[in-house]
Amino acid sequence: MTFLPLASLTGSMFSTAAMQQVFSAQACVQGMLDFEAALARAEALAGVIPASAAEPIRKACVSERIDLQALSAAAAAAGNLAIPLVKQLTAVAAGDDKEASKYVHWGATSQDAIDTGMVLQLRRALDLIDADLDALADGLAELVQHHADTVMIGRTWMQHALPVTFGLKAAGWLDAVLRHQERLQALRPRVLALQFGGAAGTLASLGDKGMEVAQALAEELQLQLPDTPWHASRDRMAEVGAVLGMLTGTLGKMARDLSLQMQTEVAELSEPAGEGRGGSSTMPHKRNPVGCAAVLACAARVPALVSTMLSGMVQEHERALGGWQAEWDTLPEIAQLAAAALQQMRQVVAGLNVDAGRMRANLDTTRGLIMAEAVMLALGAKLGRLQAHHLVEDACRRAVASGKHLREVLEQDATISAKLDAEQIDKLLDPANYLGQAEAFGERVLHTWRHRRARS
Amino acid sequence: MTFLPLASLTGSMFSTAAMQQVFSAQACVQGMLDFEAALARAEALAGVIPASAAEPIRKACVSERIDLQALSAAAAAAGNLAIPLVKQLTAVAAGDDKEASKYVHWGATSQDAIDTGMVLQLRRALDLIDADLDALADGLAELVQHHADTVMIGRTWMQHALPVTFGLKAAGWLDAVLRHQERLQALRPRVLALQFGGAAGTLASLGDKGMEVAQALAEELQLQLPDTPWHASRDRMAEVGAVLGMLTGTLGKMARDLSLQMQTEVAELSEPAGEGRGGSSTMPHKRNPVGCAAVLACAARVPALVSTMLSGMVQEHERALGGWQAEWDTLPEIAQLAAAALQQMRQVVAGLNVDAGRMRANLDTTRGLIMAEAVMLALGAKLGRLQAHHLVEDACRRAVASGKHLREVLEQDATISAKLDAEQIDKLLDPANYLGQAEAFGERVLHTWRHRRARS
Amino acid sequence: MTFLPLASLTGSMFSTAAMQQVFSAQACVQGMLDFEAALARAEALAGVIPASAAEPIRKACVSERIDLQALSAAAAAAGNLAIPLVKQLTAVAAGDDKEASKYVHWGATSQDAIDTGMVLQLRRALDLIDADLDALADGLAELVQHHADTVMIGRTWMQHALPVTFGLKAAGWLDAVLRHQERLQALRPRVLALQFGGAAGTLASLGDKGMEVAQALAEELQLQLPDTPWHASRDRMAEVGAVLGMLTGTLGKMARDLSLQMQTEVAELSEPAGEGRGGSSTMPHKRNPVGCAAVLACAARVPALVSTMLSGMVQEHERALGGWQAEWDTLPEIAQLAAAALQQMRQVVAGLNVDAGRMRANLDTTRGLIMAEAVMLALGAKLGRLQAHHLVEDACRRAVASGKHLREVLEQDATISAKLDAEQIDKLLDPANYLGQAEAFGERVLHTWRHRRARS
Amino acid sequence: MTFLPLASLTGSMFSTAAMQQVFSAQACVQGMLDFEAALARAEALAGVIPASAAEPIRKACVSERIDLQALSAAAAAAGNLAIPLVKQLTAVAAGDDKEASKYVHWGATSQDAIDTGMVLQLRRALDLIDADLDALADGLAELVQHHADTVMIGRTWMQHALPVTFGLKAAGWLDAVLRHQERLQALRPRVLALQFGGAAGTLASLGDKGMEVAQALAEELQLQLPDTPWHASRDRMAEVGAVLGMLTGTLGKMARDLSLQMQTEVAELSEPAGEGRGGSSTMPHKRNPVGCAAVLACAARVPALVSTMLSGMVQEHERALGGWQAEWDTLPEIAQLAAAALQQMRQVVAGLNVDAGRMRANLDTTRGLIMAEAVMLALGAKLGRLQAHHLVEDACRRAVASGKHLREVLEQDATISAKLDAEQIDKLLDPANYLGQAEAFGERVLHTWRHRRARS
Repeated sequence: MTFLPLASLTGSMFSTAAMQQVFSAQACVQGMLDFEAALARAEALAGVIPASAAEPIRKACVSERIDLQALSAAAAAAGNLAIPLVKQLTAVAAGDDKEASKYVHWGATSQDAIDTGMVLQLRRALDLIDADLDALADGLAELVQHHADTVMIGRTWMQHALPVTFGLKAAGWLDAVLRHQERLQALRPRVLALQFGGAAGTLASLGDKGMEVAQALAEELQLQLPDTPWHASRDRMAEVGAVLGMLTGTLGKMARDLSLQMQTEVAELSEPAGEGRGGSSTMPHKRNPVGCAAVLACAARVPALVSTMLSGMVQEHERALGGWQAEWDTLPEIAQLAAAALQQMRQVVAGLNVDAGRMRANLDTTRGLIMAEAVMLALGAKLGRLQAHHLVEDACRRAVASGKHLREVLEQDATISAKLDAEQIDKLLDPANYLGQAEAFGERVLHTWRHRRARS
Repeated sequence: MTFLPLASLTGSMFSTAAMQQVFSAQACVQGMLDFEAALARAEALAGVIPASAAEPIRKACVSERIDLQALSAAAAAAGNLAIPLVKQLTAVAAGDDKEASKYVHWGATSQDAIDTGMVLQLRRALDLIDADLDALADGLAELVQHHADTVMIGRTWMQHALPVTFGLKAAGWLDAVLRHQERLQALRPRVLALQFGGAAGTLASLGDKGMEVAQALAEELQLQLPDTPWHASRDRMAEVGAVLGMLTGTLGKMARDLSLQMQTEVAELSEPAGEGRGGSSTMPHKRNPVGCAAVLACAARVPALVSTMLSGMVQEHERALGGWQAEWDTLPEIAQLAAAALQQMRQVVAGLNVDAGRMRANLDTTRGLIMAEAVMLALGAKLGRLQAHHLVEDACRRAVASGKHLREVLEQDATISAKLDAEQIDKLLDPANYLGQAEAFGERVLHTWRHRRARS
Repeated sequence: MTFLPLASLTGSMFSTAAMQQVFSAQACVQGMLDFEAALARAEALAGVIPASAAEPIRKACVSERIDLQALSAAAAAAGNLAIPLVKQLTAVAAGDDKEASKYVHWGATSQDAIDTGMVLQLRRALDLIDADLDALADGLAELVQHHADTVMIGRTWMQHALPVTFGLKAAGWLDAVLRHQERLQALRPRVLALQFGGAAGTLASLGDKGMEVAQALAEELQLQLPDTPWHASRDRMAEVGAVLGMLTGTLGKMARDLSLQMQTEVAELSEPAGEGRGGSSTMPHKRNPVGCAAVLACAARVPALVSTMLSGMVQEHERALGGWQAEWDTLPEIAQLAAAALQQMRQVVAGLNVDAGRMRANLDTTRGLIMAEAVMLALGAKLGRLQAHHLVEDACRRAVASGKHLREVLEQDATISAKLDAEQIDKLLDPANYLGQAEAFGERVLHTWRHRRARS
Repeated sequence: MTFLPLASLTGSMFSTAAMQQVFSAQACVQGMLDFEAALARAEALAGVIPASAAEPIRKACVSERIDLQALSAAAAAAGNLAIPLVKQLTAVAAGDDKEASKYVHWGATSQDAIDTGMVLQLRRALDLIDADLDALADGLAELVQHHADTVMIGRTWMQHALPVTFGLKAAGWLDAVLRHQERLQALRPRVLALQFGGAAGTLASLGDKGMEVAQALAEELQLQLPDTPWHASRDRMAEVGAVLGMLTGTLGKMARDLSLQMQTEVAELSEPAGEGRGGSSTMPHKRNPVGCAAVLACAARVPALVSTMLSGMVQEHERALGGWQAEWDTLPEIAQLAAAALQQMRQVVAGLNVDAGRMRANLDTTRGLIMAEAVMLALGAKLGRLQAHHLVEDACRRAVASGKHLREVLEQDATISAKLDAEQIDKLLDPANYLGQAEAFGERVLHTWRHRRARS
């Protein structure tokens, strides 16, 4: 630990301050110590260990009293952090109260401490993510409302298609965010569960007091008491990873959309400015989308880490050889990347510069061609669908060939102008008149968001 | 299509007959056609297209009427299957009813047909998986009950640890299966949702009838009507992949455990025998765990495919360039691999040969050492924990050094034998007396299983 | 096989006609049969089987004589394709020559046939990829040469940065392609190696003739004879996957660049047009980049499949339980996706429409700001670097604020215009004068390409 | 950085001391500083900057002079580490020599410093890996030689198959290691290449001195000068990841084999003992394979990280938004995990306890059945293959049914014992007589190893 890990530097980009704390070396150790302290209390309550042992053990369960460097050094040979931690903890406790120290970690196994400690860390992580997700939803709802009438081009295959609104775009993002909130709520009872089984999952060393201690311990830690110890059934951990993976995917989709709209040639959006943020001294015109880049980097990294969690599920018997150990760094990494992406996106959305004028202007890039469908439908009502189709298709071809605006071509076409006057053509060519259910869709999502918000 | 894809051969190993049907070329096309037929009906109901057009279109929406080879040939240039399919469908419908054929695919876009078609296929896939999962749960519950007292060694780090029961092992598997059932129920309303947005997600081409048609269409297909079209928000599809990925992980864990127990040296279990199953003509003693191998192969393949679904979520604007297209083969592959693993595991569990005698015998491999903890605890009650610990540790060391059974060493130790007579030692060394909450844990899981079963 | 696999349809998008053939069901079977035929010949030569047995066995080793449906049906129970194939092959041979049929598959094991068969398929696949890669390199070299002077904007963070040439962009792509050719050559001797070890890798059943047969067999098949059988050392197979994964990554990078340049607002490039290619009937202005979309989809799918190959390497003992079986579909999928991406990119490059005028026009999007660095350097030579920096930075700020072209601002600035006259400013603002080593870099790559080409 | 990252703790398990140093925060910064120092020198040589500027800049390029905490804090807003580092470096240099400080980072871009810095770190990493790989190869060669005659069972499908030797097993591992050495040598010239292109890859800011500076800089750093800057062509970085991924896969395969042989029931091998290594205080009989567990955990994590490198290759234009940034933590993680696995495996192999007696004993687990093939071949020479086959198959069936040793059944069979006397049967049933080319294969690998060693 003389050398600082790379994560010390890059953590500011790929984690958040709060998450760095949740998954710091200290917090990892404290998670295990919280388990040990609660275990002592639960066992004292159940009469498994002397009542007098609980408090001295609790007082020793403070990460500041642990020598992290020695812990790390011993971990490689021991094969995990809990074995040397229990040794150190016992020594610390013995310094305070020799008798009490005999009851440290009583009846438990390394994995009980490591898994439950991780669950405690995850609870804090999920709380942080929930809060940021609420804030992001609020920011998006604001965009949906504010930009319900902000017309812009819809793009498919990265080509101009038909008009949409920026509000509808935001509604699609918000809709996904609301589903992620649902998933994150649903996984809590499955994930926030005590792991406590002793050496092979039977709690045999606690005699007939095993279940009583387990229940008391779950209560102490305010965790679910699962039907069985889950040391070798890792779907709980995999689920956290997978759901955070889906969340990060949605954030990546938003960042992709936003950064495409931020391109110099498109210029419909830009990231919030800020001291030292996204500028370039030699290229004064640049406003780099650093927030989006960070989100996209996170979205590029998380999926593979989720696959590690899933393939790691194939674990041997009552404690695995490789699959379990592979989770230790991987799940914290997923949580940190997801949280980093979320915080960045929340900030980008909150401070987003929207250039509605440029959105409007970009609609005309193809000189009216995106409105051909609208003209075709209107003309079809008067001339029959088939003839309308041919006429408009022909007009479009001429517009492309001549570089003229479709308006001009339509007005100059005798057959068409006989049926539609200039004012009608103008109206048909106005993207704002061809938005279908854009606003209705936005309203539906806002309705769900308001309902969700009222409940929470 | 003159050449059969490799999947024609390997599908028997990496899919099931029913799933091959659900995700066949024909069924993929039929899914899209079902969308088109229902669309015509919904639009006729809403008065968007002539009432007389719906039935002729429905009659044309039969995959047998489609030239699959021509479809495939055209797909590469078109960029997806729906574009050439709609062309063929229109031609087929025109052959029956020229007027009606004009209303094929009215107001919809390729992605509407492809995504909704996929959702319809997924509904059938989830039904099949649910059924097999119920059957697997039943098989496991049977093991939990039947082997509540079948003592065997618990193994951590692939080393003998403490005794457990085979029922407890099965309870851990069942517990995970029950959680997967929960997850699969929870995702249905999110996943089984109509995709319908038209060219850019506004349904503009349907004028003010967009929402009415969407509602009617969702009802026709018995799918949820989502708040917004989800063409570019792929969390719904990713979630199916991720949950099936977790399920496959659990199946892989079971296969790993089972196959380790099936090793020649362990021989506690073997797969059900069967004609041409797992035998070897030149090696008559072999009973290859072919079912477990298939499950492990599926569990090795699915995690990466899930990561493809997650990373593919980063999609551009209103229709993506790459991420969406990457889903088309990937999600069916995940579903098929999960279903294959599930069916194999269901069969392995149903026909599993359990050699309880061998389990019992293997407990003695370390000549009593696995019971040292039990002896230590009993002796501690009489001599104090510290002295007991030293005495037993020393006895163990002598047992290992001499190759003697721990019983013999204990009986020959004057201090120990003064406190524990031969009968007591015998009892302490009996693994069946050191099972802690094994049975209670099993009961808890069975309770949940019964409750779940009663509800469904 | 009554139902066609989905791959029958999507293969046109995610494979090539030639690759579908290489990895068809038939070719997979033929690969194994080619092994069996050559084995018989080698064993006849070595006197291990009767000389008269070789020819009848060879005649039976024709995939058309195998019932693929029956083969597939039996594979699931047997656990692989080779076991039932050898049974069928023996029956077919027996029909021709009962005595010879006794020597089918003599001394070999399933994995020998499956692995070597796969190697034979891979050899054909690598040949196809090499040919397409040569053609792609030629197409890119043409772009490098033809567009050495085609000035366009360089973009970092998806923002305008400094001018580059389209030739330099193509040179970067070509440079990577040349490295992939190098890698593909280097892996051939490692990958195109015979697998032949018999039941456990010792060739014991061939007595003292094992090595002789192995040598003759390798010669028959024109494969390397490896130092040891590699049944459980899968780095050879993983390497093919990894190198094709790198290639696909490069193709994806090209497709990303190209498709960004094809956006409606950018419009510097478009894909070659073609019947039914990338058009949209309702949106006449669209030219969808279908080739790039296909490449990006392939690039989205391959990386995860490579991870499956890598994680599958952890195989048990002399034949694995899961990891090996996971390769069977995965490696063909990688090869097909890589080949599909390659063929698509080759076609896109060959028929690429380059709008040099638009590239030039887009350079002016920021009204001269991209040339600020050039002005700063020129002014620095006259005024000192620091003052020049301040002056130009200030001018840029004014240009952004006023919406004026930087030229105008510079000309109106008294201090600057005292040092640089209008003509000088014009010249400094011309992107064509600020291209550094763009041409030299292009020449270097062309030099390497020519050298490579001359050798091959 | 008040909080220590988790990696501070787990680094002892998932990295090596030397690798933690190579990829520490400090070394990452020093890598970029080494680039800056060499750049100044190269530019001074080329007359681009004053000759007097080089030395003061070099003196400032010392990571101890950089405030890492401030650097990390600024990185998130800047979007990378190089931007704030150059600011700090300039300030540090200015403190020493104001004039020289103006020439810090002259003409370069962030990515030049970051990428070249990473290459410098990778060079040290590859050196460390090469050294450990040599040592591992030596250790394996020792096993191949020493255990050329150590007979053990070969296992396929995790079932007893035919006899092999432990030397042959080790030869298979060594063979793969030798291929990895080959790959690692081959990638060096591709990977150890300077990245230097300036803001958009043209080196325009260096006027006509760009190539001269690039050449001098490459020489300074002893790196290849590539044909073009490779800022957006990431195959070089992906290749390091992929090749280390293959290496880790092979190490995982070894760990899987070894740990299976270390199971309590198999007990053919055990890891080297050591203070605090793999013991269990409550379970005195346990010797946990902690080294193998660590290797397997690394092998479980690396493949997904390689897929991140591959999918990250799809980068935008001249500097990417997400894909590049995703590499920063990922490639160091791959290198550290590979190195950790390698060091662990090297130690396990060096200190491996081999119980040849137990290997021999385990061969008899199936009571002679594994030798049925040998008997069949011998008898076939006397009775014809078909009759021999029937007789032996029948004998095996009787042996299995009765639990008798195959020897006994064969001796009691009149037909068989008429052809083979007890001594002959004994000899046929001796696994040491049925090893085929085991020794020859071992010799071939040793020959290659010796040859490789002599060259290096």
